[in-house]
Amino acid sequence: MNSPLNQRLFDELEQLPLIDPHTHINPHAAASETLADILGYHYYTELAHSAGLAREQIEEPGMSPRELVGRLAPYLEHLDNTVQVSWLVEMCREFFGFEGDRIGAANWEAVFDVAEATMAAEDWEETVLQKSGLEQVYLTNDFDDPLTGFDTTRYVPCLRTDDLVFHLGKESTRERLAGATGVEVRDTASLKDGIGRLFEHFTAHGARACAISLPPDFVPDRPDQVAADMALGKLGVGDVAWTADELVAVSRQVFWALSEACSDAGLPFDLMIGVNRQVYPDGVYQGQDLFDIRTSLRQYGTLFGAFPGVTYPISVLASTSNQELVSYSWIFPNVVTNGHWWYSNIPAYIELDCRSRLQAVPRHKQIGYYSDMYKLEFALPKFRMYRRILAKVLADDFVIGMGWSEERALDLGRQVLRGNVESVFGGLA
Amino acid sequence: MNSPLNQRLFDELEQLPLIDPHTHINPHAAASETLADILGYHYYTELAHSAGLAREQIEEPGMSPRELVGRLAPYLEHLDNTVQVSWLVEMCREFFGFEGDRIGAANWEAVFDVAEATMAAEDWEETVLQKSGLEQVYLTNDFDDPLTGFDTTRYVPCLRTDDLVFHLGKESTRERLAGATGVEVRDTASLKDGIGRLFEHFTAHGARACAISLPPDFVPDRPDQVAADMALGKLGVGDVAWTADELVAVSRQVFWALSEACSDAGLPFDLMIGVNRQVYPDGVYQGQDLFDIRTSLRQYGTLFGAFPGVTYPISVLASTSNQELVSYSWIFPNVVTNGHWWYSNIPAYIELDCRSRLQAVPRHKQIGYYSDMYKLEFALPKFRMYRRILAKVLADDFVIGMGWSEERALDLGRQVLRGNVESVFGGLA
Amino acid sequence: MNSPLNQRLFDELEQLPLIDPHTHINPHAAASETLADILGYHYYTELAHSAGLAREQIEEPGMSPRELVGRLAPYLEHLDNTVQVSWLVEMCREFFGFEGDRIGAANWEAVFDVAEATMAAEDWEETVLQKSGLEQVYLTNDFDDPLTGFDTTRYVPCLRTDDLVFHLGKESTRERLAGATGVEVRDTASLKDGIGRLFEHFTAHGARACAISLPPDFVPDRPDQVAADMALGKLGVGDVAWTADELVAVSRQVFWALSEACSDAGLPFDLMIGVNRQVYPDGVYQGQDLFDIRTSLRQYGTLFGAFPGVTYPISVLASTSNQELVSYSWIFPNVVTNGHWWYSNIPAYIELDCRSRLQAVPRHKQIGYYSDMYKLEFALPKFRMYRRILAKVLADDFVIGMGWSEERALDLGRQVLRGNVESVFGGLA
Repeated sequence: MNSPLNQRLFDELEQLPLIDPHTHINPHAAASETLADILGYHYYTELAHSAGLAREQIEEPGMSPRELVGRLAPYLEHLDNTVQVSWLVEMCREFFGFEGDRIGAANWEAVFDVAEATMAAEDWEETVLQKSGLEQVYLTNDFDDPLTGFDTTRYVPCLRTDDLVFHLGKESTRERLAGATGVEVRDTASLKDGIGRLFEHFTAHGARACAISLPPDFVPDRPDQVAADMALGKLGVGDVAWTADELVAVSRQVFWALSEACSDAGLPFDLMIGVNRQVYPDGVYQGQDLFDIRTSLRQYGTLFGAFPGVTYPISVLASTSNQELVSYSWIFPNVVTNGHWWYSNIPAYIELDCRSRLQAVPRHKQIGYYSDMYKLEFALPKFRMYRRILAKVLADDFVIGMGWSEERALDLGRQVLRGNVESVFGGLA
Repeated sequence: MNSPLNQRLFDELEQLPLIDPHTHINPHAAASETLADILGYHYYTELAHSAGLAREQIEEPGMSPRELVGRLAPYLEHLDNTVQVSWLVEMCREFFGFEGDRIGAANWEAVFDVAEATMAAEDWEETVLQKSGLEQVYLTNDFDDPLTGFDTTRYVPCLRTDDLVFHLGKESTRERLAGATGVEVRDTASLKDGIGRLFEHFTAHGARACAISLPPDFVPDRPDQVAADMALGKLGVGDVAWTADELVAVSRQVFWALSEACSDAGLPFDLMIGVNRQVYPDGVYQGQDLFDIRTSLRQYGTLFGAFPGVTYPISVLASTSNQELVSYSWIFPNVVTNGHWWYSNIPAYIELDCRSRLQAVPRHKQIGYYSDMYKLEFALPKFRMYRRILAKVLADDFVIGMGWSEERALDLGRQVLRGNVESVFGGLA
Repeated sequence: MNSPLNQRLFDELEQLPLIDPHTHINPHAAASETLADILGYHYYTELAHSAGLAREQIEEPGMSPRELVGRLAPYLEHLDNTVQVSWLVEMCREFFGFEGDRIGAANWEAVFDVAEATMAAEDWEETVLQKSGLEQVYLTNDFDDPLTGFDTTRYVPCLRTDDLVFHLGKESTRERLAGATGVEVRDTASLKDGIGRLFEHFTAHGARACAISLPPDFVPDRPDQVAADMALGKLGVGDVAWTADELVAVSRQVFWALSEACSDAGLPFDLMIGVNRQVYPDGVYQGQDLFDIRTSLRQYGTLFGAFPGVTYPISVLASTSNQELVSYSWIFPNVVTNGHWWYSNIPAYIELDCRSRLQAVPRHKQIGYYSDMYKLEFALPKFRMYRRILAKVLADDFVIGMGWSEERALDLGRQVLRGNVESVFGGLA
């Protein structure tokens, strides 16, 4: 029922092999083993909880995968309108031969069984990668990840740094850092030393990016090293109880040191801006965080100006932040738009955000999409959702609106979907 | 000129009898008597004032209904582009046989005369309800409303609580409370006692909701009872001049007590978030309030978590707040999206807000629309505006976008338009 | 490939002669002399810089126009998706007979040569005005502009006042003011005297508006004259180092005095709200400023109420501010929506903002568009972009959505495109 033009563009975009530049894949268990690995994704557990299922039912220790899916399934009837459940149905149709259009209390078990049998194939991971057109998958690695035991040219390491910036006061964080680097942080100098060693380790294993998620009130101004050193000087045994000011001094110092390390190592620094953690502390695992529209990139102006050599691919959590992202990317040479994150990853917001970026940001400074997935099966429906929207925007705004040829529009589409991932992050190894 | 698909969906949605879950109807005078009752709606007086008519002209004491309409009519020529005036024309066409497409200086008096004659029919109220497909109409009652003299199964009481939360310092508020409950508020205990009696009175008369409108800076954190008791202890004769801190302590305490009472009584608590009162104090009656986009649901996280047993249908004043509403409804089990309020009640914003809700909020947690009307005649054009948009979104995003059957899409439409009103608020008496 | 309805409406709107109510045209050199005058527009220099060209390359002193264009041209290949480059291509096609659809490293020089030859015609300025359908062009004049040597009925003066409000502490500002008016500012009285003389000078030369751009944190509350007088009393020789509080006191006092002068002179006061200057101080000239979505018209409520006799055409920098603008224009008689400014001047945002304004703001209180141009050639592609969107909105929301006749929809379009410029600012001289 789509227009023939949209369909033609979509079909062409479907042919393009992908690099997924941001995921939470565990490279040692990349694909799912049962439907519970898919329905255990926080999008489903939090929506089922929102629809009425108690957290205790979802997170009961020792529950079998079949039991979990059996508990979640009846709640899908309240969720079949959501784009998230449309991904589920699309995965089941594409991967498991499911022919219905709804999954719920009446039919989940049959799907579970077929899925389990299908996923048991030895080459399941390969099959998913191939059906999804995935050539490379970027990871989100803890800073103390040994990065061994998997093919880093397929599963590309990225250094996640939230704990360093916001939880260095915890003894456990420092122990992990000392374990990974041999460095005990006592001041800015030892901090930089430790960070330098982390970067050496990660780049030696082919890392393509440093990454962090940031709350709305974080202001990455140039750090006050004296204040940071005084706060870091309090570190000893156990967790340290920094004042709010000390916490600010340390987090700015660590963040700045990470930017310096990115500059030295030539790594992009993915900033994911705007998440408030634990707004709903009684929510399910990973279903507790929200945002605040009173968030601005204004706070990042100094940073962007201070590190002209570091590329900052930016994700924003709220669509209301998108125009700032468009404008900051149009002004700052080192700011790049990055995907459609989390609460903005639904078609109504993707479409508006995608249109404005294509109309005003240099074409080589836009990473169109990443899946953010925890299990490989999600790349297919999520990228497909994006490709549908991208095809529509290319059709409406470029082929019809600007008189472009379809091939010219497709070149633009391919660039934001794939080409820029290579040029921004360094391409296939 | 609409697409045939849109038209089919719209025609089906038009058949559905409605419950209007939020209005300002006076059940003792629900329908209009003259066109002045319709044009006296603040949407028209404030727009005419904005277009150049002096407030003194609009609010002159003792003016006849005919005189008022005669003064407003010439200004409609500046307003015929507005959706609000499109409602007026639609009402006149549907109810009074008007055949033109504009009402203004040249023809208002003929419309006035026909309207007056039509409305004089003894069964006018019944006629409007029937033509509009209205089965039930929820009210907004002052807390000291006796709730007698009308059919509460047709006109359903709802307890409006703004005065209690924000104006308890006024002697007049406390006198009304004492008159209604026999309770003199002197501390938190007596406050809760009084609120408890109000809830008994309202639920005994079939009330379906407690409701309040809230300014952008209201933060409903857990109250400090000691501070509240100290402030309440200052109450005596006359208005009390609380400090800003005392006012915060009291308003949080009253608000929290209302949530507790909702929990006890099993009533939903309608929150209408984001209105700044009297931004334009020289504006016409009810045409003085505006909003501030720097408003966030972040402030409500603690509340939603503290009262898991209370359902909070949330209205936001700005479309920029809609994504937060979508996200908070997707995470919190007890948060429900509620209608398209006031300045967001125009097609450009309804469409975007409706799309995002249908794509990401559990389908049983969305109240599609309420009219907010003061006179019964408004339900027809306002709900029709919404149904047009809903039909378009169902067509574009579900039938075309997701390949749904028309019947499946209509089921979703009927649920947000009517079904959820019953399931959230308790259904037909 | 556009719908025939859209095309018909667009073609009709194209016929309408225009008054451009806000530009930065230099009336002594209104048209371009080489392609460098066009590509030197900050939209292109900042985008080329964003795309990777060093500022030093763009701003090298003594560089020839040909050299500048030659340096910028290769970067256009990264920018051909942007609406800004679509203006460039459209200008080259309309004015210089260019027949391609891309300009870049391979073909820029031929375009440069043809453009140079074409622009050398003695009647080039007339040609551009005529081809663009421009009858009048409003200027942005420094307060000490003598306003002589050009036809003020074609190029209409407007008094720009940023320096007075925000930089009165600089000796250079005061010297310019003293030079223009003979007044040395020492207190509020002399300030008002100086401003009064500026207004006399400007209105004597046919000025149509006073104008200013304002940062997000500016709060135009009623000034504290005592505090302002104390701060102004510190003025002497050299720049004065006011405290933050003194700066606020002075800026509010000057701003208020300008509003009083507008009231006395019957001039509209254009407010351009939301720009943060020098967020990227290393950016190219005029490519350093950005915005902060945490900006609200709430701060302007007191001002609008205090000067009912002054019309305030308002431009907002962020599309997220648009709903506030719509709502404030619908409530305040003296607030008028004005164009689509800067970062909001791209189709994705213009369309949403245009739709909401046409649906809810009195039709005579909307200035549809201004070009903001520095060189005359830009009016054609920029207004054409707007007309395309306006035609689409008129088609979708009025002809199709509301059943209006095409002629009725065109009347609305002509009014916002041209008629209101005359009624708000005073029309053709």
